[in-house]
Amino acid sequence: MSGGWQRDSRPLEGYFLEDFHHDRVFRHATPRTITAGDVSLYIALTGARNPLHCSEPLARSMGYKGCPVDDLLVFNMAFGKTVSDVSYNAIANLGYADVRFREPVYVGDTLSCQSRVIGVKENSNGKSGVVYVTSTSVNQHGNEVLGWDRWVMVARRAGAEMPPTVIPPLADDVPASEFHVPRFLEAGALDFEHTASARLWDDFAPGDTVDHPGGATIEEAEHMMATRLYQNTARIHFDAHLAAGNQFGRRLVYGGHVISLCRALSYDGLENAFAVAAIHGGTHANPTFAGDTIYCRHVVLARDTVPKRRDVGALRLRMLGVKNQDPAKLPALAPGEKHPAVVLDLDYSVLIARRQNP
Amino acid sequence: MSGGWQRDSRPLEGYFLEDFHHDRVFRHATPRTITAGDVSLYIALTGARNPLHCSEPLARSMGYKGCPVDDLLVFNMAFGKTVSDVSYNAIANLGYADVRFREPVYVGDTLSCQSRVIGVKENSNGKSGVVYVTSTSVNQHGNEVLGWDRWVMVARRAGAEMPPTVIPPLADDVPASEFHVPRFLEAGALDFEHTASARLWDDFAPGDTVDHPGGATIEEAEHMMATRLYQNTARIHFDAHLAAGNQFGRRLVYGGHVISLCRALSYDGLENAFAVAAIHGGTHANPTFAGDTIYCRHVVLARDTVPKRRDVGALRLRMLGVKNQDPAKLPALAPGEKHPAVVLDLDYSVLIARRQNP
Amino acid sequence: MSGGWQRDSRPLEGYFLEDFHHDRVFRHATPRTITAGDVSLYIALTGARNPLHCSEPLARSMGYKGCPVDDLLVFNMAFGKTVSDVSYNAIANLGYADVRFREPVYVGDTLSCQSRVIGVKENSNGKSGVVYVTSTSVNQHGNEVLGWDRWVMVARRAGAEMPPTVIPPLADDVPASEFHVPRFLEAGALDFEHTASARLWDDFAPGDTVDHPGGATIEEAEHMMATRLYQNTARIHFDAHLAAGNQFGRRLVYGGHVISLCRALSYDGLENAFAVAAIHGGTHANPTFAGDTIYCRHVVLARDTVPKRRDVGALRLRMLGVKNQDPAKLPALAPGEKHPAVVLDLDYSVLIARRQNP
Repeated sequence: MSGGWQRDSRPLEGYFLEDFHHDRVFRHATPRTITAGDVSLYIALTGARNPLHCSEPLARSMGYKGCPVDDLLVFNMAFGKTVSDVSYNAIANLGYADVRFREPVYVGDTLSCQSRVIGVKENSNGKSGVVYVTSTSVNQHGNEVLGWDRWVMVARRAGAEMPPTVIPPLADDVPASEFHVPRFLEAGALDFEHTASARLWDDFAPGDTVDHPGGATIEEAEHMMATRLYQNTARIHFDAHLAAGNQFGRRLVYGGHVISLCRALSYDGLENAFAVAAIHGGTHANPTFAGDTIYCRHVVLARDTVPKRRDVGALRLRMLGVKNQDPAKLPALAPGEKHPAVVLDLDYSVLIARRQNP
Repeated sequence: MSGGWQRDSRPLEGYFLEDFHHDRVFRHATPRTITAGDVSLYIALTGARNPLHCSEPLARSMGYKGCPVDDLLVFNMAFGKTVSDVSYNAIANLGYADVRFREPVYVGDTLSCQSRVIGVKENSNGKSGVVYVTSTSVNQHGNEVLGWDRWVMVARRAGAEMPPTVIPPLADDVPASEFHVPRFLEAGALDFEHTASARLWDDFAPGDTVDHPGGATIEEAEHMMATRLYQNTARIHFDAHLAAGNQFGRRLVYGGHVISLCRALSYDGLENAFAVAAIHGGTHANPTFAGDTIYCRHVVLARDTVPKRRDVGALRLRMLGVKNQDPAKLPALAPGEKHPAVVLDLDYSVLIARRQNP
Repeated sequence: MSGGWQRDSRPLEGYFLEDFHHDRVFRHATPRTITAGDVSLYIALTGARNPLHCSEPLARSMGYKGCPVDDLLVFNMAFGKTVSDVSYNAIANLGYADVRFREPVYVGDTLSCQSRVIGVKENSNGKSGVVYVTSTSVNQHGNEVLGWDRWVMVARRAGAEMPPTVIPPLADDVPASEFHVPRFLEAGALDFEHTASARLWDDFAPGDTVDHPGGATIEEAEHMMATRLYQNTARIHFDAHLAAGNQFGRRLVYGGHVISLCRALSYDGLENAFAVAAIHGGTHANPTFAGDTIYCRHVVLARDTVPKRRDVGALRLRMLGVKNQDPAKLPALAPGEKHPAVVLDLDYSVLIARRQNP
């Protein structure tokens, strides 16, 4: 634990820009034991169908102690804890980097989370600035299950003294050579009879585009239940009375819910992509509101090997979350290119079994 | 396992009429371990109050290993798995037959499901046809927990070659002599103190009509969460953008959710009907949409004995799901008679304790 | 068990005023084993973040066998069981008194509930009257986990004979000397690292006002799911078709859901108030509907010691549930004073750790 840790009570109004001095550590409230109830709600709210997270016998045959918890449920749970401290007064979520999924999380595991300030910079308008944090979530054994960097634009109190500017280095990506692949993993046990698909690592090539067929119309009750499940407290998702006064005049859907929906929709086509290894970067390119219908396109960016494994490989993917438009009618987008229907543009890697020659 | 099983990946656009040749077997994706979270969500989404599924001590006193999972939760879970393969391109769900509830399902059991094509017939318009399948769901021990026949109208691709026409025999009903009643069952342990009702098998007679007092207004978030809980992927339930172009201009409520709501509403009056033994047939007679309020009428069709048991009997019931109208004001309907307010007309049998003479 | 218990089946239309003769006992239907699924849903529906109910290691370090179930989830579950018998034909919920939280409830415990009529009085209009009941909920060991008194206005059938009038004594409050504080409790184990707050018993004083920063806009799906989770069957919450004919023309939100939302919102400021000890009284001062945004103000009424404990104390609080208005802009309200934006006015006590001198 860093010497930067302070035992000041979190202020009810949350932290502001000038509170984020370099190296300050926040131990986030409410450690959480993940339960079977959380997993069921995640399925009901997102439509997740990855068999590894649904079938105990399958998970065991793949070498796990039981069904690991969906990587994005873990991500959202861990992320949610940081909001009260890091982004309660956020004006915008600017980016993610270096998101690494490590130890599997099982039902019964307890996740705690902390963040350290790695950078801070005032905007030229003097009313806000950018805060950079590195966050880690550990289980009850103290093992890290997830780590990530994130930067947000945070409001500044008038007249407060700013800490010195620090701009941190940020990773462009997580190298495939550093992906966490459990030693025990028997990737081949995830069979056609579990996924109804024989599409494996070998069948994908850079440039391949998959427009997934399903769509998910989001209701206010759904995104709020998901976001509360993660104990994410950002008021913009929950408080229509307050939101009536913002630039949109309404509540916003939490971006992590959109990521989860896209991952769930992409089961049809990426049936055998059983785990998320890393998120290299991403942006919530446009806001999502209740009533929007989310679709998903994936573009294969790279097919990577992982060290010491011939049975499992990685696909680096560009996930495009598309709203209120058939994704098959979306034009090809250059790297970083924006489009008014694209709400999510995520660069990440999944693990997927490789075809075994007899 | 049949020789009809094919290891072709499920096409992203789903199967069409011409893909359903006789005896083809589909092993449906995503085996599912049922959890306590699924059971809680089922209660929260349907209002189910059957004590057998709620109280562990009661379930044990009735001879079960623990609370068995609600029969209709099992049905919806099993049915949901078949949708991606069987009815992703369905135009209409035409009917059920021979639905048999067998081994009890407990929290922790893992359900898998497969279907075999037992019939196929092109419609005279050449654009669609009827597919008949028989489906079975087994637990992790390979024991069948549920079996059913079903027929659906499925779209045909233009120009595709049709398999030969086969029209299967379909059972009119499941004989009461074949109902699965667990040998261990102590029906008498379900006492007045659990149900607040002394209405038993002996108190019902053919022709009796019960108009249940409750009503359930359905919200979009509710029917979508229920349908996703079952991992049912039919787009008509989830995608408002796509549905805007259909004949209704909106999403449809999954018919199995309406069955579950009616079963839950009927607790007031059928408090001691602790299990569903069979569904003999049924139709979703009119569409249900979010905003509709569902009520339920039951008509007793028959009072049946079950083999070797004097403590438990069966009631054959006609379940009428009624929308936006007090069911008590519904006229008596002849067998098969339609009514614009009736959305569900189901012929099924429940198990219920018989009065014991001292 | 009282000799007042009757084995008459609950009538489908519910009980009316004249059915509540003094000392009549109702054993309420559907004993319920609380599961991890119930706990997850409670978090997703209310936003509860109390670490004692979320982290197994923390709960154990505080001396509990595991995470105890949130007191208000227990209250709502127990209360829900009474509705079919006590308030199915209620015109208004008039009040609570003497609500005592006793044995902790854990996942896996089974709650049963019964009520005894302690008073009944006809209104002068002859069409309704007041029913007073005392209710208790016990676990599977027969130990009382919760007890409370409640009075409701209930409709009378025309022409029915009234039982004799009995007006019971009602407690003004539960003395702090009678609060249930588990002997095993290690209050000091709830540390800053779990709650991100060092605000303890010592930091509050009578008259202190806390306007909690969050707000929760309620959707129809959410309040109905919560109310069904509790198996509360009051039609006014679920049946929009029936409600169209009532004075509001729409469904009402169950008052217990509003209490739970306020308790959850008040985590920011009362982070270390880990348990509810008693509810002394309270009223649902105005109706709440879907679309309303709920905020919460707390006023400290008293700081109480509890017998034989120097590590934990109690705060007596006035919880004001406020709708569609920033609570910070609410005027100070005299005891019992009403305000059109106040939907809930609750007088209750929480347990909270005291600062330990080294």
